Amino acid sequence: MSFQIPRGTQDILPGEAEKWQYIEQMARDICRRYNYQEIRTPIFEHTELFLRSVGDTTDIVQKEMYTFEDRGGRSITLRPEGTAAVVRSFVENKMYGTPNQPVKLYYMGPMFRYERPQAGRFRQFVQFGVEALGSSDPAIDAEVIALAMELYHSLGLKKLKLVMNSLGDAPSRKAHRQALIDHFKGRISEFCEDCQSRLEKNPMRILDCKKDRDHELMETAPSILDYLNDESRLYFEKVQLYLTKLGIAFEVDPRLVRGLDYYNHTAFEIMSEAEGFGAITTLCGGGRYNGLVQEIGGPETPGIGFALSIERLLAALAAEGITLPVAQGIDCFIVALGEKAKDESVILVNKLRQSGMKVERDYQDRKVKAQLKAADRLESAYVAILGDDELEKQVIAIKNMATGEQTEVSLHSFVQYMKTAVESK
Amino acid sequence: MSFQIPRGTQDILPGEAEKWQYIEQMARDICRRYNYQEIRTPIFEHTELFLRSVGDTTDIVQKEMYTFEDRGGRSITLRPEGTAAVVRSFVENKMYGTPNQPVKLYYMGPMFRYERPQAGRFRQFVQFGVEALGSSDPAIDAEVIALAMELYHSLGLKKLKLVMNSLGDAPSRKAHRQALIDHFKGRISEFCEDCQSRLEKNPMRILDCKKDRDHELMETAPSILDYLNDESRLYFEKVQLYLTKLGIAFEVDPRLVRGLDYYNHTAFEIMSEAEGFGAITTLCGGGRYNGLVQEIGGPETPGIGFALSIERLLAALAAEGITLPVAQGIDCFIVALGEKAKDESVILVNKLRQSGMKVERDYQDRKVKAQLKAADRLESAYVAILGDDELEKQVIAIKNMATGEQTEVSLHSFVQYMKTAVESK
Repeated sequence: MSFQIPRGTQDILPGEAEKWQYIEQMARDICRRYNYQEIRTPIFEHTELFLRSVGDTTDIVQKEMYTFEDRGGRSITLRPEGTAAVVRSFVENKMYGTPNQPVKLYYMGPMFRYERPQAGRFRQFVQFGVEALGSSDPAIDAEVIALAMELYHSLGLKKLKLVMNSLGDAPSRKAHRQALIDHFKGRISEFCEDCQSRLEKNPMRILDCKKDRDHELMETAPSILDYLNDESRLYFEKVQLYLTKLGIAFEVDPRLVRGLDYYNHTAFEIMSEAEGFGAITTLCGGGRYNGLVQEIGGPETPGIGFALSIERLLAALAAEGITLPVAQGIDCFIVALGEKAKDESVILVNKLRQSGMKVERDYQDRKVKAQLKAADRLESAYVAILGDDELEKQVIAIKNMATGEQTEVSLHSFVQYMKTAVESK
Repeated sequence: MSFQIPRGTQDILPGEAEKWQYIEQMARDICRRYNYQEIRTPIFEHTELFLRSVGDTTDIVQKEMYTFEDRGGRSITLRPEGTAAVVRSFVENKMYGTPNQPVKLYYMGPMFRYERPQAGRFRQFVQFGVEALGSSDPAIDAEVIALAMELYHSLGLKKLKLVMNSLGDAPSRKAHRQALIDHFKGRISEFCEDCQSRLEKNPMRILDCKKDRDHELMETAPSILDYLNDESRLYFEKVQLYLTKLGIAFEVDPRLVRGLDYYNHTAFEIMSEAEGFGAITTLCGGGRYNGLVQEIGGPETPGIGFALSIERLLAALAAEGITLPVAQGIDCFIVALGEKAKDESVILVNKLRQSGMKVERDYQDRKVKAQLKAADRLESAYVAILGDDELEKQVIAIKNMATGEQTEVSLHSFVQYMKTAVESK
């Protein structure tokens, strides 16, 4: 009997895993410099949390959640996104009461959506995201966007497009909402069923519909930008001013929406413009959600964040032909001939490793020639050869594989010799 | 409405998350030096995989798995441990056919068991583990054990006990199995129900029973060590020789067992002997499983590995009073007074961050005094003060918080000045 990986999931194997580590390390370092701290929430949450926060009219909640009963009869759901749990934790741990405000958090980890698997879309995928909770300074909106852009740029991506919009505050959205209803209601029967039910519940989401995107009323729909009140307009202008000062190019697209009521002001997406990247070009999505903390049971607290998929990021790197500078090879391979030398090599390997070197030996009882081949395959910088003869003389032969240079050193000074050699590489 | 974290799980919050990062980074670095590469498998697998590999008579499978049907009607299970999926991936990706043997892998991530939550026991917990597949050299057994010990030692743990046993090869185990049946069968009715059913299925697991541990037949039960054939005994002696040469102290305990059929030869556990550590002292468990790859549908392949819990590791560190050297504080806080200075500070903060510094500013529209307090709380090494006056003169005031020293530099040279100052700290 053999077993297969669940559909829509993937193993990240050696060779590939190092790229993930590199990206994660880069993200962690940027978060450190921007003073965002990591939070880790569980893989699953009570289902109600997502019904409340993601919204029970969304595709995610209606069709895509991994929801099940645990052995205690509670309905739990594998998290489909990261913000809900971060906000749940923010409220449950009363972080709104700590003196350091805003609370600046980041997370990295797997998310789960039962979607039809296709290129670049997995049922388990990894998101990196940040949330800044507690500030309504437009400078924090710019900071969050700058952080995402810095990650992409640090990894070498160049063909990026940042698209921005403002959804305004509650009064602005209310005015826009009414304008949308007035615009669509006469001909709503020409739209898909989903849009028909959206008209009263959440007309802004009609603008986001993939089925009706080409309907003529879409082009002429009222723009949120025409309904922003002074406060909202000034806020949006300030965010744009900061981005411009930071040298971050962007486009304003009034059709960029967030469907849920608690989203407001800044909304943004970062897309890849690399050729042949495929249909799904969005790498990162984010925005301001000043109503969400309250929705989850906390005090009124402004918030902004983004989430980006590591799988899409890797796809964008591939599309731009970028190879990450992931370290290859090992420092030393110890070849041993004879029983005593083999036993001794166990100790020598261990000593080199404890001194910081990446070291390997043979564990397959291979002949010398095959051991040398193994060293070659592992791209070893040095090969050290120990036979029972050398062991008797308490020496070891060392070959520098780059120069071909060979030398013999005493076993006593072997570790120090190797350390110096590897460090001066 | 407010939401709670699911029972038996925990949020790892800022302050705590940095410790996890530190431990993970240490584990990654040790794996690098030992030439183990990371593999990441999905959070869930087809349920049959665990029935087959963990074993359908175990508590894990019978009582503790998070098993559910996905929307396609497949039975999937949140992984209760890491080895099964690594071996599934090894077989599915035909890693047994790659030239670099053994295949040396490590993993880190959440595992799930529906157990009664108690001190040190969570329903979601994180394991770090390694698996070396493809070698039956006793040196690899010693390497795997040395790797686990090096992690603990690198973090500062001292009060550790390594316990070892050999379960022998198949003929040795068969002989021992019969001896156990003969030993227990006459009085098996005095044992718990579980043990009664174990007698024929898996008598070795009787030795592991928590309920019957004090029964007099336990003390006198035949020891596996008396049933090892020559090959098994030599193998075990060699592992012990290597550990001794590596300076790793251990005890041999013939009652240390692994219940499943495909375990053989080396078995080991690492315990904390710190005072007040609590009832569950095992930090790490591992052993050789030469039959598992075949059980999962691959070719006959020897294997050995261990798994250790990060939660227990943290508990052991706490019990020994060890504080991890986690970096605190930030490099610079920029205090801004006046609208123009605030706008300018957005740019300066960004420049410092892009130069590698950890930098913060105010996002709460605080007065100068409150901004200085915030800088203090964040343990900022430097505070830079920019008012509209300074901005007009194109200068900025800098205070070294350790020495109290103050200076004024031109805005033009600010980033370079700070870089030099922070690097020479």
